[in-house]
Amino acid sequence: MFRATCNTRDFKKVINATSNLVDEICFEVDENGIKASAMDPSHVALVSMEMPKEVFEEYEGDIHDIGIDLEALKKIIARGKGDEKLILDLDVEKNKLNVTFKSNVTRKFSIALYDVSSSNLKVPDIEYPNNVSIKAGAFVEALKDAELVNDHITLKVDEDKFIIYSKGDLNQSETVFDNGIEDDDATLAEFNMGEASRSTFNLAYLKDLTKSTAAEDLLKIYLGSDMPVKIEYEVSGSKLVFLLAPRIES
Amino acid sequence: MFRATCNTRDFKKVINATSNLVDEICFEVDENGIKASAMDPSHVALVSMEMPKEVFEEYEGDIHDIGIDLEALKKIIARGKGDEKLILDLDVEKNKLNVTFKSNVTRKFSIALYDVSSSNLKVPDIEYPNNVSIKAGAFVEALKDAELVNDHITLKVDEDKFIIYSKGDLNQSETVFDNGIEDDDATLAEFNMGEASRSTFNLAYLKDLTKSTAAEDLLKIYLGSDMPVKIEYEVSGSKLVFLLAPRIES
Amino acid sequence: MFRATCNTRDFKKVINATSNLVDEICFEVDENGIKASAMDPSHVALVSMEMPKEVFEEYEGDIHDIGIDLEALKKIIARGKGDEKLILDLDVEKNKLNVTFKSNVTRKFSIALYDVSSSNLKVPDIEYPNNVSIKAGAFVEALKDAELVNDHITLKVDEDKFIIYSKGDLNQSETVFDNGIEDDDATLAEFNMGEASRSTFNLAYLKDLTKSTAAEDLLKIYLGSDMPVKIEYEVSGSKLVFLLAPRIES
Repeated sequence: MFRATCNTRDFKKVINATSNLVDEICFEVDENGIKASAMDPSHVALVSMEMPKEVFEEYEGDIHDIGIDLEALKKIIARGKGDEKLILDLDVEKNKLNVTFKSNVTRKFSIALYDVSSSNLKVPDIEYPNNVSIKAGAFVEALKDAELVNDHITLKVDEDKFIIYSKGDLNQSETVFDNGIEDDDATLAEFNMGEASRSTFNLAYLKDLTKSTAAEDLLKIYLGSDMPVKIEYEVSGSKLVFLLAPRIES
Repeated sequence: MFRATCNTRDFKKVINATSNLVDEICFEVDENGIKASAMDPSHVALVSMEMPKEVFEEYEGDIHDIGIDLEALKKIIARGKGDEKLILDLDVEKNKLNVTFKSNVTRKFSIALYDVSSSNLKVPDIEYPNNVSIKAGAFVEALKDAELVNDHITLKVDEDKFIIYSKGDLNQSETVFDNGIEDDDATLAEFNMGEASRSTFNLAYLKDLTKSTAAEDLLKIYLGSDMPVKIEYEVSGSKLVFLLAPRIES
Repeated sequence: MFRATCNTRDFKKVINATSNLVDEICFEVDENGIKASAMDPSHVALVSMEMPKEVFEEYEGDIHDIGIDLEALKKIIARGKGDEKLILDLDVEKNKLNVTFKSNVTRKFSIALYDVSSSNLKVPDIEYPNNVSIKAGAFVEALKDAELVNDHITLKVDEDKFIIYSKGDLNQSETVFDNGIEDDDATLAEFNMGEASRSTFNLAYLKDLTKSTAAEDLLKIYLGSDMPVKIEYEVSGSKLVFLLAPRIES
């Protein structure tokens, strides 16, 4: 059996973040919680999410692989109000996942399961020379700035600065987070630099994988030269990790 | 002659509710107020509205049939601000209806009359086994839930419950209003059940005829098995009635 | 050299107002401030803006002609937040204008200069029989009313009234600002009439040139019979002037 209860707001955040990059996923359920990971269709980005049983109000789970059409689940979850109680409940016999929203009215959706087998994908254990922690709002704004001039951007760590840089045929854009400057907002919350490095990424992917963040969420960004960027953040106890391959400049 | 004054907000609501289903209508005006009824172009739904003279600040009306392009009237009415005074005034000679908004500025529209003759349609006097009163907001949300899985829905009354149900090829949706459960919000304000019954309707029509309701409006819904559904509500003293034919399942 | 600092909000307003009608412009910079004027591509409207050095927090300017793609500049300026500090700074060597937004983060754009030579256009010195001052919000609403019935409108001054009038095949619209009526809001702030007159204009242009006004901005409108209309307004010390040729009715 599998049955879990939580608040709608948190589950919505986790599902939205995951579904921006992948279309279907296999929830690997067991007594400890829900895990899932998947690559985007073009195998450039990897998404991994972990919802330990502690984030649920009630949780009971045997071992199950629950294959889900994320697009359909996202639309259903979007129908829930933030303060409604959300109940997930596997109907093994009918091969369906029931999603129930409970307030003074009971609204129940049944969603057919997909034949998605568990991927056993793991986020590779890479050693990164640099990492920074940054508020998601400021990072997303820098991506929007870069979007005005080109469709790829360069993330640089150099001389006490984290720089988001983009250059088009005519114009260019640059956002500088300077670790040496007093920053009351703690926009750049952490800055750990091993060696100067830079990598270039597809902007659309970076936008997709940060689309569901809230402005105050802290993103932990791991960076090296011509290495995949790793971006981690937490949503009320659930953990999201994204890995994006660099664009190798010819 | 015909000349009537009211506040823009209320008239806007009545016109919007009516114009969601029909394109043209004949306002039957007399000393008691304005009445109109029309069928939608495919003859599946009937709309009827009644604005008694008491809802107007000033009202003077001889007997007139005023044929109106509802789409044009709706756009004009949309230009009025809620707290402006609205004056309707028939220019028999020029065959136009003048619509004037008055605040510190005077804005006057003249709209050409259509050759729509009075339909003398009446809402048929059907005996219904069941009726419920429900807040429009909750009903509209249930329609949106249903929309995720199919384009028609089933309204059921059974065992102290009013159920809105939809089933697609893969997924299904169900909203249950349970008369037996304490409901502080009075979402289900009344529940009068004669016999268990169910009918299926085109979802797009139900959405159209509830599109202009406010969340707190009370809809009175009359329901039987394979019978048209009748939905009534009031807007500041004006009465709106909708009748929608059931979808006969093959 | 040219370097100027101001708040983002004001500069955004001036650039938006200018860029609604023209695509490129030459900023004529000198020690007194920035001036620019341009005609729209179809030579029906003339736009002129003046930002004296007093509107800037800091200002230093030698004589320069700075040709700008207004569409690109508008998009960049749109990325600034209202309360950020904006720094304009000419890089003569690289032939670029740098636009920097400064808050706790520094965001810098470089925009390539265009080869737009100074136009030396002047707003012609026409004597107008009438002028009115009117709140932009009320004027824009009247344009929207007119838009429902036709794509051109007539501005009339007659008998203590300023009238915005439009007539379509079926319907018509008329907004009357009556100088004789007490108007607590001072919507019609001034009314100076020399002789009754009327001119007809393309509605889309009038909408474009008032698109960036705020509801409370005072527009000074100069009007005669079959003459261009001149519309002036101020944005925090900067001056905007628009001239629009009349539509000669055949």
